[in-house]
Amino acid sequence: MDETATILAANQAFYDAHEQRDITAMDKLWQHSDDIVCTHPGWPTLRGRATVMESWARIFSGPGRTQFILTDIHVVVRAETAWVTLSENIVDRAATGSVAATNVFVRTDDGWSISLHHGSPVMGP
Amino acid sequence: MDETATILAANQAFYDAHEQRDITAMDKLWQHSDDIVCTHPGWPTLRGRATVMESWARIFSGPGRTQFILTDIHVVVRAETAWVTLSENIVDRAATGSVAATNVFVRTDDGWSISLHHGSPVMGP
Repeated sequence: MDETATILAANQAFYDAHEQRDITAMDKLWQHSDDIVCTHPGWPTLRGRATVMESWARIFSGPGRTQFILTDIHVVVRAETAWVTLSENIVDRAATGSVAATNVFVRTDDGWSISLHHGSPVMGP
Repeated sequence: MDETATILAANQAFYDAHEQRDITAMDKLWQHSDDIVCTHPGWPTLRGRATVMESWARIFSGPGRTQFILTDIHVVVRAETAWVTLSENIVDRAATGSVAATNVFVRTDDGWSISLHHGSPVMGP
C-alpha cells in the first residue's frame, strides 16, 4: 500500500474500534506517548495516555452504539506526520448529527499511530 | 529563539491577528497551499486557501470584537510539523465561553505557517 492508503487504513481502524467498542484495539491505535491529545465533541481537551484512554473506556461503557458514515475524507502527509480531516456522520439510538474531525497521525515503529483526535459538533444552519 | 518559542510566537500572532481583525496578517500566517483546513467552532470543515481566507474576512466583518485569554497551551514538535493545543477563553460583547483549539503548523521558507485550525465549543458541565 502507498503511504496515503496506509494512513487511511489506520484512520478507518480508529472508527472500527469505536463502532465495535474495542478498547484494546483503540489502545493499540494511539501513539505510545504522553503527548497524545484528544478532544471529544463538546469536551475540553484531554491530554496524556491515561486520561485519553480512560475517556474511551467511559464512552465505550455508556449507553447506545454509534455508527459512523465517514465522508469528505482528506489526507495531508508531511514526512513522519499526517493529518486526516473528515466528516463523521453519526447514527446512534439517540440522535443523528455531524461531527467535524481532525486526526493527526505520526509514523512510529508500529506504523502510523494516532497522536491527536479532535471532534467538534457541526451546528445546523 | 528555540523552535518551541518560535512556534508559540506564530501561534500568538494568529490570535493577535484575530483580535485586531487584521486580514493581511492572518493571510500571511497561513501556509500558501490549498491543503489548508479550518474548522471554526460549530462550522463544517473549510478547505483551501480561498475558502478559508474568505471565512476570516466574513468573521472579521461581523459585529463584536473578540478577545482571547489563552490557557493550557501545549506544543508538540515533530520535524517539520508542530501542533499547538490550547483553550481559547473568549470574551466578546455577546458572550463568554471556552473553545478547545488545535493549530497545526508546518515549517516553510517563511518560517512556521498555520496549515490547520480546529476550534470546538466546550459545553458546560
